[in-house]
Amino acid sequence: MQRHRTFTAEIRDHVGERVTITGWLHRLRAMGGVNFVILRDRTGTAQVVATEAEITPLHGLHTETVLAITGRVVETPQAPGGIEMVEPQFEIISPVHEATPFAIYKDRLRASMPVFLDHAVFGHRALERRAVLRLLSGVMGGFRETLNQKHFTEIQSPKLVESATESGANVFAADYFGRTAYLAQSPQFYKQIMVGVFERVYEVGPVFRAEPHATSRHLNQYVSLDVEFGFIRDHFDVMEMLIEVIKGIIEHLKTHYAPELNLLKAELPLLPDKVPHLYFPEAQQMLHDQFGVNDALGEPDLAPEHERILGKWARDNHNSDFVFVTGYPMVKRPFYTHPNPADPRYSNSFDLLFRGLELVTGGQRLHQYQDYLDAAARFRYPLEPFRYYFEAFKFGMPPHGGFAIGLERFVTQLLGLDNVRLAALFPRDMHRLAP
Amino acid sequence: MQRHRTFTAEIRDHVGERVTITGWLHRLRAMGGVNFVILRDRTGTAQVVATEAEITPLHGLHTETVLAITGRVVETPQAPGGIEMVEPQFEIISPVHEATPFAIYKDRLRASMPVFLDHAVFGHRALERRAVLRLLSGVMGGFRETLNQKHFTEIQSPKLVESATESGANVFAADYFGRTAYLAQSPQFYKQIMVGVFERVYEVGPVFRAEPHATSRHLNQYVSLDVEFGFIRDHFDVMEMLIEVIKGIIEHLKTHYAPELNLLKAELPLLPDKVPHLYFPEAQQMLHDQFGVNDALGEPDLAPEHERILGKWARDNHNSDFVFVTGYPMVKRPFYTHPNPADPRYSNSFDLLFRGLELVTGGQRLHQYQDYLDAAARFRYPLEPFRYYFEAFKFGMPPHGGFAIGLERFVTQLLGLDNVRLAALFPRDMHRLAP
Repeated sequence: MQRHRTFTAEIRDHVGERVTITGWLHRLRAMGGVNFVILRDRTGTAQVVATEAEITPLHGLHTETVLAITGRVVETPQAPGGIEMVEPQFEIISPVHEATPFAIYKDRLRASMPVFLDHAVFGHRALERRAVLRLLSGVMGGFRETLNQKHFTEIQSPKLVESATESGANVFAADYFGRTAYLAQSPQFYKQIMVGVFERVYEVGPVFRAEPHATSRHLNQYVSLDVEFGFIRDHFDVMEMLIEVIKGIIEHLKTHYAPELNLLKAELPLLPDKVPHLYFPEAQQMLHDQFGVNDALGEPDLAPEHERILGKWARDNHNSDFVFVTGYPMVKRPFYTHPNPADPRYSNSFDLLFRGLELVTGGQRLHQYQDYLDAAARFRYPLEPFRYYFEAFKFGMPPHGGFAIGLERFVTQLLGLDNVRLAALFPRDMHRLAP
Repeated sequence: MQRHRTFTAEIRDHVGERVTITGWLHRLRAMGGVNFVILRDRTGTAQVVATEAEITPLHGLHTETVLAITGRVVETPQAPGGIEMVEPQFEIISPVHEATPFAIYKDRLRASMPVFLDHAVFGHRALERRAVLRLLSGVMGGFRETLNQKHFTEIQSPKLVESATESGANVFAADYFGRTAYLAQSPQFYKQIMVGVFERVYEVGPVFRAEPHATSRHLNQYVSLDVEFGFIRDHFDVMEMLIEVIKGIIEHLKTHYAPELNLLKAELPLLPDKVPHLYFPEAQQMLHDQFGVNDALGEPDLAPEHERILGKWARDNHNSDFVFVTGYPMVKRPFYTHPNPADPRYSNSFDLLFRGLELVTGGQRLHQYQDYLDAAARFRYPLEPFRYYFEAFKFGMPPHGGFAIGLERFVTQLLGLDNVRLAALFPRDMHRLAP
């Protein structure tokens, strides 16, 4: 690699010069005695035209061979982007001697999802796959950038814990030097605790859910974008912060990830200044009265179909791809949820639906120590395993709240993918632990 | 929380005005009929002077009570910083009815380490503890900022894996829907694979080591700052990148974390333009010849005491708190390590010592598929469990390398702490799974 490397995206600045590009053999096509070599690097692709004699070093090699190509840059109207390279010399860096399991240069990957996932190690090199995964990076970056500007401090909390936080079910157990540890289902208690230290905290990290479902919406490990902050009035302060974070993420993507958004033909979400919100019983009433839904009233939760209807309602009536449902019944929310002071059957919590799918759950939490003791008793939640954590409340916590965004779900909805596995780096489900 | 909140760091801009500050009762002192109330918020502390009558609302309450104080800001030469508040009105937000396990307003925490760690949920509120944990955030931020500028892409890889990557021992096992999953000891294979996709990648995330040791230098879960990139010549390109990353982190801390560095009296590291490096056998020879070390020659690794000597040597002779040792014997390095082409007993790998302690391990990796097959056979490393991963090499990988920095260890050495547990948010060791 001694020579100077020119990136494929830069060659148009070097017309008439000989330059060296380096990367993967993306595609090789022979057409009437002329060979078209497409080389891929991290900035894009470039077309190189080679005669039969020039192409000799590639004989017997397959796509994905890593190579350096030195050639002269010329303007050619019929070439992709009007630029190509001619008179190439090839240097093989890493030869590939076997055909790839499927072609990745096609406009749309032809592999079935299971086949693709088995070979994702290679398949992620496809330009559209790479762009999807780049957006995961972009969402994380925009999330952090927005919160850093608002004086939040980043934490990384333990993933091995002595006691399962949310519920005993759906938690993975591990052997920890002869005793049982659990994989954290969320950083919930840690982020609350750290509000007592920094006032405003966030975490980007893995969470683990041992849910024995195989749906297109769930992963058994995913990346959670967690936020928690203190000195709020109620959950509406949390909702306001959440919208600012989502705006920040979208701005970050527009600024830094335009090539990926264009390649994927992503439709950026409609996010009006005022995102609509519906109080839970009001949402149920509307589903019943306006949309003829018979199974909504009186239920403690919304079904996925109800969420889809509310998503469409928000888009049609408020020009918004987002809609809040607030005040979910306390019986369906974790014990640390703050009740609505005006009607304690309902909670100061919310879901944010994005294009008809729950993307974010959040709310105000209890903050008084006595309220924790009372709630734990009411929910028959054992106190002893959490004695360490409850010290945060015993020793003074301000009113606080927060939320968690599912990273892969965000990108799934942003791009209109039909399975969350396609927005995961290497998804984990009931049947898949590799690659 | 309806009123406007002024932060303690801002009150000096409001001399003569009545403002409201909000936070925790950090300390309360009665001196000769006058009461000094110290309130802590995320920006610092402020002193409030209260008469016996004014202080009545605080009767019976303990430190860490959350409260709002409205008072007039005055300049007082003998007050801390020359500013205090008088004529206060107190509003209790969350009362504390019990004394805290130890005082956190003292200059130096008096609690023993086990007692401190048991109560870290509260103890982290101490100003110096908070500053240490803020630096963890700062190191992560500087790491990402530097790499983003160099066109790296962030990944978050699976933490539950089918097969242990580095060795069968020292790995935590978990039950995964009836079969065994392992907690990833490092994102090694994933970051290498993703070089095939993005060319340059990094990850900040938890790693899990089931090492049954209880030392002051090891944690069973820690945050690893991982980097991997392609199209390198050899490990010296990786070392150069590492130094740029460390420079970037230190600049980031100086720019954004000066208050924390000052509070902790941190001595920023000596980092000359040219960080010294020693080839492994050369380092052993020097230890023997110059420092009279008898047990170094012929050993395949350096002992902690050897590292301390080399650290001192670099400081005394090169004005550097960092020193590279390159070329560790292949027998002590993982099977994917690239050998030194000129002498295959030694590797194209390195350690970076920071103030005499190994902070970073890195190097060039094998990149040819056949080399992986040969190395796996030589190391008796089973291929079948890794068939998915090895597709990365079968289908073309460029010469590449990378490194991993231990986040907590970096902050430990930066601050001269005597135990890595004191640089962890909530440390995990053989005996500690909570809080």
